[in-house]
Amino acid sequence: MPETFDLGRLVLESGASLPVRLGYATHGTLAQDGGNAVLVPSYYTGTSSSYLPWIGSGSVLDTDRLFVVAVDMLGNGVSTSPSNAPEEVAGPRFPVVTVRDQVRAQRRLLDALGVRRLRLVLGWSMGAMQAYEWAVTYADDVDALLPICGAARCSPHNHVFLEGVRAALTADPAFRGGRYEFPPVAGLEAFGRVYAGWAYSRDFFHLGTYRELGYPSVQAVLEGWAADHAALDANDLLAMIDTWQSGDVGRGRAGGYEEALRGVRARTIVMPSTTDAYFTAADSEAEAALVPSAELRPLWSELGHIAGRPGIRAAETATIARAVRDLLDG
Amino acid sequence: MPETFDLGRLVLESGASLPVRLGYATHGTLAQDGGNAVLVPSYYTGTSSSYLPWIGSGSVLDTDRLFVVAVDMLGNGVSTSPSNAPEEVAGPRFPVVTVRDQVRAQRRLLDALGVRRLRLVLGWSMGAMQAYEWAVTYADDVDALLPICGAARCSPHNHVFLEGVRAALTADPAFRGGRYEFPPVAGLEAFGRVYAGWAYSRDFFHLGTYRELGYPSVQAVLEGWAADHAALDANDLLAMIDTWQSGDVGRGRAGGYEEALRGVRARTIVMPSTTDAYFTAADSEAEAALVPSAELRPLWSELGHIAGRPGIRAAETATIARAVRDLLDG
Repeated sequence: MPETFDLGRLVLESGASLPVRLGYATHGTLAQDGGNAVLVPSYYTGTSSSYLPWIGSGSVLDTDRLFVVAVDMLGNGVSTSPSNAPEEVAGPRFPVVTVRDQVRAQRRLLDALGVRRLRLVLGWSMGAMQAYEWAVTYADDVDALLPICGAARCSPHNHVFLEGVRAALTADPAFRGGRYEFPPVAGLEAFGRVYAGWAYSRDFFHLGTYRELGYPSVQAVLEGWAADHAALDANDLLAMIDTWQSGDVGRGRAGGYEEALRGVRARTIVMPSTTDAYFTAADSEAEAALVPSAELRPLWSELGHIAGRPGIRAAETATIARAVRDLLDG
Repeated sequence: MPETFDLGRLVLESGASLPVRLGYATHGTLAQDGGNAVLVPSYYTGTSSSYLPWIGSGSVLDTDRLFVVAVDMLGNGVSTSPSNAPEEVAGPRFPVVTVRDQVRAQRRLLDALGVRRLRLVLGWSMGAMQAYEWAVTYADDVDALLPICGAARCSPHNHVFLEGVRAALTADPAFRGGRYEFPPVAGLEAFGRVYAGWAYSRDFFHLGTYRELGYPSVQAVLEGWAADHAALDANDLLAMIDTWQSGDVGRGRAGGYEEALRGVRARTIVMPSTTDAYFTAADSEAEAALVPSAELRPLWSELGHIAGRPGIRAAETATIARAVRDLLDG
């Protein structure tokens, strides 16, 4: 069951101030010396529960050895978000929360839990963006880093993809600039349909891999994504896109992005999917070349971006589990 | 100046009947023996004029030697389209016109022009889909085939991409199921923004290639695509998507897609862009392996799908010009 941590007001990078409540869940027991903590930040449309397929006794994140903290990203509908925030910052008044803001809020949570350093930060997708930011902002406190299908910054092509889904949603006048009383269903469904083309790969559709995920047809994939997104809050979706587009470990730092990555001290395995359309293997390769101790270890998969999603498929999970083992034992 | 050819009513694959007027332009002079005709069918949002950068004395399609027929695809706003059709088939009443229907209409035009066989059919994007259909439907009458950034059928991933842009447009209630009085501008702009992410490549944005195309920034690319599409007719855009999604040289034919491609007799150069996100190089490779005399000759370019667009860039044009020469002289 997720718990909540109320950290009071956080002054954001933008200068705005946000009353912050974080959802999180812990698994396992923190060692006396505090040396077994692992942090997993949530991903787009995910929650702290989304990583459960990897967490447990003998699992990828073995709770017999590790103390796992799974945390809900601000904007995800569990932590403070447009859909649940106090009136002053609710809905379209929600400020831009950067990836760095997320990480600073998470640091406060870990302080409260008595966690001083992290054996490992890992995450998929936007979780990986937060993991990178952790390894830069708190370079001395992160022993190992495993970004899966993510990046240390939002690339311009990734930004353009996100502007597409944003436009599809906001083209629905029922969105009313975020002041909707009833959900902008047509816009949300269009958002889901546009997203579906990006989430997977050419081969995912060509080989019929969607059947393995329970979709009987290509049409069912589109309808599934439309229906799934119709149930989500439009302002939350857009707040998380703002966070996503803000991602850049170098912003405002002397030396910028490259120097920021060169400053990572964590043992690192950078794990792109070979068929990811927006967090591309090419971007990961460039980032792995900048992080001093990084190894590039691709997930060879036709699942596209989805390849690294917790619980998606045994082969991908095995590759991720091996990376976790290598990082913890290395 | 485009001319028009009125071919009366055409019974479509669907059984519907459409009064067909084709826009077209000819360049050069048909040889006495009729042996110098080249056909170039138009592409999505293009017209018969779009190929002009390749047409002229000494150009890629040399009008000193060749008789070039450039034809407007049905639905493109010049030939019979939702936006200009007689009331009975106007707007949302416009029937689905398949790629095969397009080619059958074009055959009637060539008959009227006295062209019996084609030295070469080439096209970019949807123009390539029509070129493939020509080489299958009229295998005995096509000497050479050059599909550029296109395919012999619409792949499932390509279909999903198109459902995304369709959804972005139709989510705007101003579209009114196609019965709009005023253009659904928000939907058209969203359509353009979503499309922009697919048209180019990761490297196009990463390397800043957009500047070479006159866009000062990534934001300018998005705004340019939004503005360009706001000026287009929504029903025309959707009619051409219907055509695009219908593309399959094997549909309704014994032996299907593979046998259809094995039956192509034209000398063929299949020319994908190495970074095309929807008419992928992988699909082209598979198709080149099926067409008996085909050579796969990729356009190595970071321009994504746009790599093969007429006049886009000198290096890509040179590769295309060489392929035309090799096919005509081979």
